[in-house]
Amino acid sequence: MDTNKLGRILAKMEEKGIPQMIITDPPAIFYLTGKWIYPGERLHALYINVNGKHNFIINRLFPQETDLGVGITYYDDTEDGVEILSRFVEKDKVMGIDKVWPAKFLLRFQELKAGSKFVNGSVIVDKIRQIKDAKEQELMIESSKLNDQVMDELIPWVVKGLTEKELNAKVREIYKKHGINEVSFDPITAYAKGAADPHHVTDDTKGKHGDCVILDIGGFYKNYASDMTRTVFIGEVSERQKEIYNIVLEANLRGIAAAKPGNKMKDVDLAARNYIEEKGYGKYFTHRTGHSIGLEDHEVGDVSSVNDEIIEVGQCFSVEPGIYLPDEGIGVRIEDLVLITEDGCKVLNEYTKDIIVVPES
Amino acid sequence: MDTNKLGRILAKMEEKGIPQMIITDPPAIFYLTGKWIYPGERLHALYINVNGKHNFIINRLFPQETDLGVGITYYDDTEDGVEILSRFVEKDKVMGIDKVWPAKFLLRFQELKAGSKFVNGSVIVDKIRQIKDAKEQELMIESSKLNDQVMDELIPWVVKGLTEKELNAKVREIYKKHGINEVSFDPITAYAKGAADPHHVTDDTKGKHGDCVILDIGGFYKNYASDMTRTVFIGEVSERQKEIYNIVLEANLRGIAAAKPGNKMKDVDLAARNYIEEKGYGKYFTHRTGHSIGLEDHEVGDVSSVNDEIIEVGQCFSVEPGIYLPDEGIGVRIEDLVLITEDGCKVLNEYTKDIIVVPES
Repeated sequence: MDTNKLGRILAKMEEKGIPQMIITDPPAIFYLTGKWIYPGERLHALYINVNGKHNFIINRLFPQETDLGVGITYYDDTEDGVEILSRFVEKDKVMGIDKVWPAKFLLRFQELKAGSKFVNGSVIVDKIRQIKDAKEQELMIESSKLNDQVMDELIPWVVKGLTEKELNAKVREIYKKHGINEVSFDPITAYAKGAADPHHVTDDTKGKHGDCVILDIGGFYKNYASDMTRTVFIGEVSERQKEIYNIVLEANLRGIAAAKPGNKMKDVDLAARNYIEEKGYGKYFTHRTGHSIGLEDHEVGDVSSVNDEIIEVGQCFSVEPGIYLPDEGIGVRIEDLVLITEDGCKVLNEYTKDIIVVPES
Repeated sequence: MDTNKLGRILAKMEEKGIPQMIITDPPAIFYLTGKWIYPGERLHALYINVNGKHNFIINRLFPQETDLGVGITYYDDTEDGVEILSRFVEKDKVMGIDKVWPAKFLLRFQELKAGSKFVNGSVIVDKIRQIKDAKEQELMIESSKLNDQVMDELIPWVVKGLTEKELNAKVREIYKKHGINEVSFDPITAYAKGAADPHHVTDDTKGKHGDCVILDIGGFYKNYASDMTRTVFIGEVSERQKEIYNIVLEANLRGIAAAKPGNKMKDVDLAARNYIEEKGYGKYFTHRTGHSIGLEDHEVGDVSSVNDEIIEVGQCFSVEPGIYLPDEGIGVRIEDLVLITEDGCKVLNEYTKDIIVVPES
């Protein structure tokens, strides 16, 4: 296990009065062990304790060949894995539980009285994961640099006549060309009416003259996610589209300006949101301003109007205001990732935010 | 909601003393409402009660356009969805919880004392789902018929020089040709040493003369899964390979013969397992004999030596014994799906189980 990351988690556990914890979410396990383990519907659980007696319970079907830096206890399909896990715990003490642990395991664990009280332990792990260490920061920077390149190669493909699905496939193809086999989310390549609906599902609509096109893309580079949005226009941009674009751009810039240590997460949201509201489009900005990102595209730590948490150096999140006007078939979103530094933030996406009008064909 | 399926579930709840239940697993929700809803990390919960007062809690980001046959309560990201859910429940009665409900929700639900006792409610839903109704049976039959065709078109592609990954891509391509865009699991296309390891990950190994090749494939046809395995040989089959093949084949046939109403699930496993043990290969048959199948490839209801449940008409599961000899680079598995009928079972895969030797190129 990564002793530095583990140490930070154990210290926080001590502080919060949670002396033991079950970690089961694959990204959290990767975070600590450097290994992805996907047991599907089967139990696996990394048990950690501030007393240093850690243990990893894994199904025998998933034998570990590398040293994970923690003792492993295997069980097989004919055994009650949760009962075996319960033998390692201190039943008279508070027990932290991973936020994603399925109820079938937790209910059995509770039946076995494997703790004096059960609480969500992921709040600790997720808080630590928010603060990227030097190596993680480097990977986040590299990941977004690559995303800038992918965007650059993608935009020339935005032409009249190509369907959203075809453009979506193109995004994946460009990532593959760059050695990235896994996108961090299904790319959004939405035209006009689709762009005006943040929950639009990519379809066979073809791009046409005058469309705004939302391109929201990200991939995993050495396990770390990128995520960026640009909105471009086919053939021509109307005065109305320009007006909306410039409001969103200013909101994006104001959000970024508020992204600094000491501010609250909600300050970033409100900086973007208040400007859009001022301009009269508040009700057309229908989502939070952003989300934390790292080993997963969406990590705990919303950039929303209700998140009072103080921003700290090393955090990484998206700033992605948007305005969606379904009746006009106009949707604009501009998204960058930021990495919080001592005196503000580093914007990880350098791809231009000037208005881009792509040729029709 | 499907009143017939819902009625069966409510009757079983009454019988088991679980008057209310939270259903959250997407296939279980599809089973009842005919709608796939994937809220990602966000809460959604179908609450059902034997008193008929059902309710569906959904995030406002996922507006439902079709009538689901149940009242919907929307919440948004600034609200505590679990607390809203808790307002609908009978707090002084036992509460069934979906097996996959993440701990972050269950722990909050328990904190709100939203039930007198919390138990795994999925055992009821899963038991009902095991028994396919007439329409489901028809879809399972059609799904496997299509899988037979895909296998038939796949086998000519098994040649010397094609990598496992290339063959894997070919499987997906053939499904697509038949209008099936989603495989029910990552296809297994494993040669020799890979075939001898049931947990082998598809790689760039090329097929060569004398290889045994495991082809384990399945797709979703109108939401219902298929799953079949055949083992074929490139260029030539050795006496040794034939010997192992015939033992596995006989085990497969014996398992199928034991698949009838009134027998236990473990009888199917043991019929296959005992024969393989008799022949001296018990320790090389390293997995359960099969699994239930339907809206998911793996559903609750193992064909394993510890499952004492009585087999009922309408159940659908796989019979897939195998022998894996890593030192010899030989692996053979033969898998069919069966549908339990009044007097035994219907084997859903009609693709030949004779030994197939494919030409080398």
